[in-house]
Amino acid sequence: MELAKTIKSVRSWVNVARSKGKKIGFVPTMGALHIGHISLIEAARKNTDFVVVSIFVNPTQFGPGEDFEKYPRPLDTDLEICKKAGADVVFAPSAKEMYPMKNLTWVNVEKLTAPLCGRCRPGHFRGVATVCTKFFNIVAPDIAFFGQKDAQQVAVVKKMAADLNMSLEIVVCPTVREKNGLAISSRNRYLTAQEKKDAASIYKSLRKCEQMVKEGIRETEPIIAQMRKILSPVSAIEYISIVDAQTLETIDKIAGTAIAAVAVKIGSTRLIDNILIDVLAG
Amino acid sequence: MELAKTIKSVRSWVNVARSKGKKIGFVPTMGALHIGHISLIEAARKNTDFVVVSIFVNPTQFGPGEDFEKYPRPLDTDLEICKKAGADVVFAPSAKEMYPMKNLTWVNVEKLTAPLCGRCRPGHFRGVATVCTKFFNIVAPDIAFFGQKDAQQVAVVKKMAADLNMSLEIVVCPTVREKNGLAISSRNRYLTAQEKKDAASIYKSLRKCEQMVKEGIRETEPIIAQMRKILSPVSAIEYISIVDAQTLETIDKIAGTAIAAVAVKIGSTRLIDNILIDVLAG
Repeated sequence: MELAKTIKSVRSWVNVARSKGKKIGFVPTMGALHIGHISLIEAARKNTDFVVVSIFVNPTQFGPGEDFEKYPRPLDTDLEICKKAGADVVFAPSAKEMYPMKNLTWVNVEKLTAPLCGRCRPGHFRGVATVCTKFFNIVAPDIAFFGQKDAQQVAVVKKMAADLNMSLEIVVCPTVREKNGLAISSRNRYLTAQEKKDAASIYKSLRKCEQMVKEGIRETEPIIAQMRKILSPVSAIEYISIVDAQTLETIDKIAGTAIAAVAVKIGSTRLIDNILIDVLAG
Repeated sequence: MELAKTIKSVRSWVNVARSKGKKIGFVPTMGALHIGHISLIEAARKNTDFVVVSIFVNPTQFGPGEDFEKYPRPLDTDLEICKKAGADVVFAPSAKEMYPMKNLTWVNVEKLTAPLCGRCRPGHFRGVATVCTKFFNIVAPDIAFFGQKDAQQVAVVKKMAADLNMSLEIVVCPTVREKNGLAISSRNRYLTAQEKKDAASIYKSLRKCEQMVKEGIRETEPIIAQMRKILSPVSAIEYISIVDAQTLETIDKIAGTAIAAVAVKIGSTRLIDNILIDVLAG
């Protein structure tokens, strides 16, 4: 496995692979890798011939007062994980490498970035869309792999790729969970043992939603009320939303594919999770 | 020469050329081609192995009340011109092909898009940056060719390409002029014979600027005053600006490379022009 610190160097590794007719897979990450990321790298390994993993804590997607400084950066461990999972190149640039001059260019996806996490994290998805565009231009992958856990990010990146005619495929991999249902996240390491227990309620609330839909309930209001009952004793709720999976618009009644999404704070740690609900299948 | 109406088809022509090791040149245009465009196609012919010309009157860069509907679309003549100038493929998509769904994704270059034409045409450069990104993703050129006449567009596209790590080179070709100095533009065909004569004052004012700088004048205020004297009798002045060539910020004193830029209305036709001024060379 190669470690590329510069754009030039990752481009040259990719060009060598492409010249051999290899299909390029790309897994963008902020490092602090866990089994969720590993599942993405393994999916890339399975579906492409040359796997690039980026590790970059992107400053432009953090707001003031968020955890940019404190965000974990265990590079050596991350490199070990990438190697074991089958990456060919890890691209771990500095902030200076990615933003050498004052950046004036932003990619903004309207509407999809307004609700859910967009409401509490203004500018977050603009930073995500912009850095993904940069990475896609640098790596030029055939397929990029994202986790369903960041459902809004998935919707934003998919729409951006379609609108801007990016010639790559976006593959979305299922959320990986701990035994108690807690979605795996780099931020879980901020949690105390008790908080981790409490955090199990997040998935419990999503399962409750799933169950109510299975029982035939389609109105979102009573579902959200039940989810709130599960979450409010253990967390500060930022949002509990049931939205259309494509437009991310709040819906009153579930029809087609919807996303039930939750953001809460447990202690001082912000956690998100979601499930897809398909009433045709459910 | 091939005519591609769809993204799929232009991509397949380009892929065939690239698989033969050919360097791809790209000239984006709105059609109504003139000798300015021909100079761009010829530059592409000279510097690359496979030349793609796009012809697309991009709706998202026109404001309400601008000349989108009336903008000339002489496709047959344009195709003849492209063929003679040495294009390999003309990509002439429909608006539906370029914007099949409601577009929600915009590429915005801050600061550079605010002054000059950006002031009177809000949203114009956002449309330009977005459609250029789309074309660059579709054609994936090694070099894209732009005319210096649209100086602000050049600055915006260059900054965008750098900020977003687009892996292409932007080559800027000099403005082509009529005998009387009038910069060649598709919009010149809107002018009456008298207006065309009057329009010669635009380049006259820029030459005046050049001359004053040569004489050692560095303050922009007296230069602009003289330019105004030349332009005001024959036109409605939108702006006369002397700006830094990189930042496009207004400067009081010329140092390094500057741009003297003018936008006026002659009759009902809006015309722009500019010259580069380099005080080290001048």
